[in-house]
Amino acid sequence: MAGKVDILTLDACALRERLANGALTALELAEACIARIAARDPEIRAWAWFDADFARQQARALDAHRQAGRAIGPLHGLPVALKDVIDTAKIPTENGCPLDQGRVPVKDAAIVSRLKAAGAVIMGKTVTTELAYMQAGETRNPHNPAHTPGGSSSGSAAAVADGMVPLAVGTQTGGSVIRPASYCGVAGFKPSFGAIPRSGVLMQSPTLDTVGVFARTAADAALLAEVLFGHDAGDPATSPEPVPPLLRLATSAPPLRPVFAFVRPPGWDAADPQLHAAFDELVEALGDQVFEVPLPNAFDQAAEIRERINFAEMARYYYRYARELDALGTRTQEALTKGNAILARDYLAALDWPDVLYAGLGEIFERCDAILCPAATGPAPEGLEFTGNAIFNGLWTLTGTPAVTVPAFTAENGLPMGVQMVAARGNDARLLRTANWFQNWLAEAGN
Amino acid sequence: MAGKVDILTLDACALRERLANGALTALELAEACIARIAARDPEIRAWAWFDADFARQQARALDAHRQAGRAIGPLHGLPVALKDVIDTAKIPTENGCPLDQGRVPVKDAAIVSRLKAAGAVIMGKTVTTELAYMQAGETRNPHNPAHTPGGSSSGSAAAVADGMVPLAVGTQTGGSVIRPASYCGVAGFKPSFGAIPRSGVLMQSPTLDTVGVFARTAADAALLAEVLFGHDAGDPATSPEPVPPLLRLATSAPPLRPVFAFVRPPGWDAADPQLHAAFDELVEALGDQVFEVPLPNAFDQAAEIRERINFAEMARYYYRYARELDALGTRTQEALTKGNAILARDYLAALDWPDVLYAGLGEIFERCDAILCPAATGPAPEGLEFTGNAIFNGLWTLTGTPAVTVPAFTAENGLPMGVQMVAARGNDARLLRTANWFQNWLAEAGN
Repeated sequence: MAGKVDILTLDACALRERLANGALTALELAEACIARIAARDPEIRAWAWFDADFARQQARALDAHRQAGRAIGPLHGLPVALKDVIDTAKIPTENGCPLDQGRVPVKDAAIVSRLKAAGAVIMGKTVTTELAYMQAGETRNPHNPAHTPGGSSSGSAAAVADGMVPLAVGTQTGGSVIRPASYCGVAGFKPSFGAIPRSGVLMQSPTLDTVGVFARTAADAALLAEVLFGHDAGDPATSPEPVPPLLRLATSAPPLRPVFAFVRPPGWDAADPQLHAAFDELVEALGDQVFEVPLPNAFDQAAEIRERINFAEMARYYYRYARELDALGTRTQEALTKGNAILARDYLAALDWPDVLYAGLGEIFERCDAILCPAATGPAPEGLEFTGNAIFNGLWTLTGTPAVTVPAFTAENGLPMGVQMVAARGNDARLLRTANWFQNWLAEAGN
Repeated sequence: MAGKVDILTLDACALRERLANGALTALELAEACIARIAARDPEIRAWAWFDADFARQQARALDAHRQAGRAIGPLHGLPVALKDVIDTAKIPTENGCPLDQGRVPVKDAAIVSRLKAAGAVIMGKTVTTELAYMQAGETRNPHNPAHTPGGSSSGSAAAVADGMVPLAVGTQTGGSVIRPASYCGVAGFKPSFGAIPRSGVLMQSPTLDTVGVFARTAADAALLAEVLFGHDAGDPATSPEPVPPLLRLATSAPPLRPVFAFVRPPGWDAADPQLHAAFDELVEALGDQVFEVPLPNAFDQAAEIRERINFAEMARYYYRYARELDALGTRTQEALTKGNAILARDYLAALDWPDVLYAGLGEIFERCDAILCPAATGPAPEGLEFTGNAIFNGLWTLTGTPAVTVPAFTAENGLPMGVQMVAARGNDARLLRTANWFQNWLAEAGN
């Protein structure tokens, strides 16, 4: 049997196999994670709420369940971290906000129920920026604690990156999954808008809020996301369609070598020159599997449109927080103040844009398996105050297109940078298959 | 064969039978309507666009179709009037607005296609208030031309009331179907929100805009509405559910004598005392078939909430009109000016209310077949400038509940007053059955 260190370097799919065939027990895995957290979290500070015994209890119950010969769930025994904006019954969910200190939901979010039903071990709650916006929490980047892990899903990204858990759940309203995944050197997946229900998840901006996942690989992301996908009556954005077999499709071989459409989104010129160079090399290495294409000009306005929708809805749904504005961080205050001034007619006009922008992508998606672009403007910035620039993420949140990032480059300072892939709405499974292919290709190429 | 006058007093269901069995041709009926319009419209001014030959052409084609032994549609040969906010290909659709003078759509609204497919004769376009709001057109009440017909579906209500057509289509965002139907002494039906697609209909306030119908009886309303009901991909408010057999259910006998919940909605005290007296009598006559129940207190805010949603969305969707504000009537200008000042957060907060208000009706609907209440605050007011008070209609538009009015009382000045019945969302067929029962009961009672 593998030692503790080995276990923590395994990906979730490999762990799942060992848990299923009995080579590993849920308790052994939980103990390894607990030990890692105990050793590392004083420095990384990924966790907002963690109780080793709570994890042990679940792991023991799952082991007993399996030993009784009963059918096990698709995430049997796998520890999962939850961003602290996801309601957990009887466990604090404080939304990274002083006004929610001591808040304990009575009910699990829909996705938490799904995780429990799938046999996951709920490992605890991870640090979020204040109310999932830009006011940083205290989490540090595992690759260099002087750097931000990104946000708003700071703790979820850092916990996976540091080997404390193999899987974590986060949310993205601007760039809160893909950016921290890129900064922390893990895989991040923000599915199509409406794929994962948000019932019981902090509502910041219902037009944009999207639940996403963190894992070591695109295949692991598929494993976790498949459990979370699917209609829920509590979230009108979800539709009663069958859930695609994400894991099976993601790990299958593409019928043809994937073709990528490389785009330089608005903000490209101001991005880190190391990123420019890295993409030059990547495009050359992909050869005839990539073509470059400009984004329609309308995307120049995507950031402003996204912000208008986000701030207007934030002003509505954070109303009770806005009443105690002084208790909030300055970044949150600024956003709420801006949001309070937005006119209904301008907000409604902005709501027309996502479909207009998306329509402009139709011709691109017809010609490729995925759009290829950076996941962030460079490696994680130094300092813990600023969670980084989300300009390469917001456009895909606004258009509701699935996006995935996998670690691809290393900056001179040793920090990772991700490559982001984006597909047409609803093409989540194919996107994950493409990302899985890309990760294998990178590994084989020794890139 | 019946003479022209007789034909025009028949209801649509009776006409339909004669058209189907050959006792009447579509052309004969069209000619009768044409003659009536020629005689009466100089005074009533119900029509925004009317061309006798256009009607004749359709009627001849329908007669030829039938004579060829081909299957006929459910509205075969029945003349239908369309409010001039409903797009008709190649036929002017001017929205009652000087800025849209000469506007000719290239495409039929979805409901116009359905009417044509059902064999209706599109008789022409009827006068609407400016942009379907409160700035009156020139239509007069057929019962007394010194009085308003109500609005915004002024011409549709007046044309049916005057015997120019047996059926007409209108729209309601506040009280634009039920109120003019009451003022003009015809049946009006505003179905559940989302029942009839609005693709190709002037968009004023998508949260509230509802297509409705005018007819002589509740059964006729069912006949017409059944053709208009059903999912359309162009209107996200419609859902892909099967269309109920409205006509068959509406004309069937209720299994038990219907029970009504009489409510006095906000505005009751300020309504015409004749209405108070009429409802006293009605409630007494219905005996154990009616109980009185208060509306939840929250309904006191329904009018303000509805207006906030309406004006905010109007400011957005009438943006191109607002750029030439001086060309519009003062009432339209006022609404747009108010709408332009509404904040996004307040608009979004208002959007929570329809479901909250609707939930408060659950206990009432459990105990009755329909809520019973006035359709308007009294008979049609004198003068043509003010289309009347919609306070008894807006609450049911806001809650998305189906509402129907049938003529029930006559004021001292000889003008009609309607009784409004309201049911739970989706219970349109049962509501029409109840209204049909009520109309028969009124006729039998000689009320």
